[in-house]
Amino acid sequence: MHTVSVATPGGHYPIHIGRGRLEALAASVPADATALAVITNTTVADLYGQRVHDALAAAGKPIHWVRLPDGEQYKTWDSLNQIFDALLGAALDRKAVLIALGGGVVGDMAGFAAACYMRGVRFVQVPTTLLAQVDSSVGGKTAINHPLGKNMIGAFYQPQAVEIDLQVLATLPAREISAGLAEVVKYGMIADAAFFAWCEAHVQALRALDDEAIAYAVRRACELKAWVVSQDERESGLRAILNFGHTFGHAIESGLGYGQWLHGEAVGCGMVLAAQLSVQARGLDPAVAARIQALVQAIGCPVRPPALGLDRWFDLMRVDKKTEGRHIRYVLLPGLGQACLQAVDDDKVRPLLAAAGG
Amino acid sequence: MHTVSVATPGGHYPIHIGRGRLEALAASVPADATALAVITNTTVADLYGQRVHDALAAAGKPIHWVRLPDGEQYKTWDSLNQIFDALLGAALDRKAVLIALGGGVVGDMAGFAAACYMRGVRFVQVPTTLLAQVDSSVGGKTAINHPLGKNMIGAFYQPQAVEIDLQVLATLPAREISAGLAEVVKYGMIADAAFFAWCEAHVQALRALDDEAIAYAVRRACELKAWVVSQDERESGLRAILNFGHTFGHAIESGLGYGQWLHGEAVGCGMVLAAQLSVQARGLDPAVAARIQALVQAIGCPVRPPALGLDRWFDLMRVDKKTEGRHIRYVLLPGLGQACLQAVDDDKVRPLLAAAGG
Repeated sequence: MHTVSVATPGGHYPIHIGRGRLEALAASVPADATALAVITNTTVADLYGQRVHDALAAAGKPIHWVRLPDGEQYKTWDSLNQIFDALLGAALDRKAVLIALGGGVVGDMAGFAAACYMRGVRFVQVPTTLLAQVDSSVGGKTAINHPLGKNMIGAFYQPQAVEIDLQVLATLPAREISAGLAEVVKYGMIADAAFFAWCEAHVQALRALDDEAIAYAVRRACELKAWVVSQDERESGLRAILNFGHTFGHAIESGLGYGQWLHGEAVGCGMVLAAQLSVQARGLDPAVAARIQALVQAIGCPVRPPALGLDRWFDLMRVDKKTEGRHIRYVLLPGLGQACLQAVDDDKVRPLLAAAGG
Repeated sequence: MHTVSVATPGGHYPIHIGRGRLEALAASVPADATALAVITNTTVADLYGQRVHDALAAAGKPIHWVRLPDGEQYKTWDSLNQIFDALLGAALDRKAVLIALGGGVVGDMAGFAAACYMRGVRFVQVPTTLLAQVDSSVGGKTAINHPLGKNMIGAFYQPQAVEIDLQVLATLPAREISAGLAEVVKYGMIADAAFFAWCEAHVQALRALDDEAIAYAVRRACELKAWVVSQDERESGLRAILNFGHTFGHAIESGLGYGQWLHGEAVGCGMVLAAQLSVQARGLDPAVAARIQALVQAIGCPVRPPALGLDRWFDLMRVDKKTEGRHIRYVLLPGLGQACLQAVDDDKVRPLLAAAGG
């Protein structure tokens, strides 16, 4: 097992990465917890519900289960309210602990529920997708979607611990592995050129879930994310670089309807567009942009955006949380492994989207 | 104008208390605000909308208005979502500032909306009821109600400033003045016996909104609340004493349906019950309990609880956020001006409620 530490004003906590972490979950339950509520979805419950139940039983606390429908389209107030109904229905108190067992959707919703239930109860992240393991479970961003924008309603709220079991990746569809790898390679693009090159060299091993390769990739991604959020928990500056590709990506997800493209797929395509924009607006070497497109393609993510219509692209992108006034701000790369946040006029982005078929 | 300072880990901010604060609102708008959204209700908008609009116009920012229906029964997700719909519909960004113009319901909802919108934007409290001025606008507790309990979904989230205009009290119905005075006299009971005696001596001046008396009472209440929340922002200990009378009070509000009794009325009656329980469970001098009952009556609040049925009382009280496991915890008074938190067996509370007609 490897441990990565996260230190933010909102909380210090460990990320435990290893095989068999599900079986060790009882160790992450605080001694004074009055009860546990496992928030999960039907797919994950079928796969791991019994194992997690047996593992948590060792903690000797009452265990309640909340099974939500599976999919980004359910990251809504209705699902959040299902959690609150269950917690209040079971009369869980302020010392209850929530366990988020699932992918990013479950983690974001369970974390937001923990942030709001009785104004805040403790929770543990147990991410079961690659994307959640390397991104959403770390750093305390929680949220639900709104019909007018993704992740618009939420909180910065840190978990007590993140428990990453690499064994669960074996049951993921190949498409979800590819989507998760998009966030893995992102860290190389924005903060670690050597890691980017390592990903290029190990892309087949990563897609095949080679034990050693995937363990290193998850660990390095968590280290880089932990470093960024420890500098800037509430995204007043540096943390925004983690949104590389996300301005375009969120527009794709929102424009097509949540759940059509996976989040990582939309981000993968968004990073290709953001790299092209970086060539124009920040003088990024076109050869680097080409390497970025080649790596996104190699991990199995789409590199051509859907045809949303140009006006709609900008309407959707303007809802982005980085927007200030009317100016859409993009994370751009001055060079490989370096990122910055910059407003770019719509007129400069339009030809790029048009050429890409957007 | 008098200024009281609040210093919590979640934020340092001033409470400005005086006459004509509405006209001075532009000064509380941060220079880098991109837009303002005034969250209010229809009643307050009719009374003060134009004055506030004119005052804020001096800040030179776009102003959006969100008018909610008036009443505790609207402190729901539906109203909260109306706020989010309006903010997103107007494409307000992370640097927008919310202005909570109204009583406790508006303040709690606008504050919670500010806590969650894009994971947190700034907001200013402009409380227009006595109860909100001396209690809910100070200290950063925000929430909405859930059918299974009051204030169950919320956040600790501090405002940028609290602007208390004493002139607006002139338009309040007498019933709301009485309800607000319940929270005023509470501070004397739990933390300041001299202030309690001052309230006894000035009860008629307070009910008549005598300038000098009400200014002193609001200021002293804010000072005492600021002191408590500065010690314990997230209610891990001391802050719970502010809930004196609230365990019974919340059950009354929830059991009768929100909006039947005003919050302050329910708390007033709850304090009478909690004082009686303090005699039994903490040896409080019965003469003090009698003074408490007399003062609650003198300010114009009910002292006899509604007949909810005994089992229902306990079901409702057990949902209280102070409950741990199955044990209902009450704020009790060992003496006048002193408070503590203590679990009391239902069997000891039952005869008291039965005798009171509950």
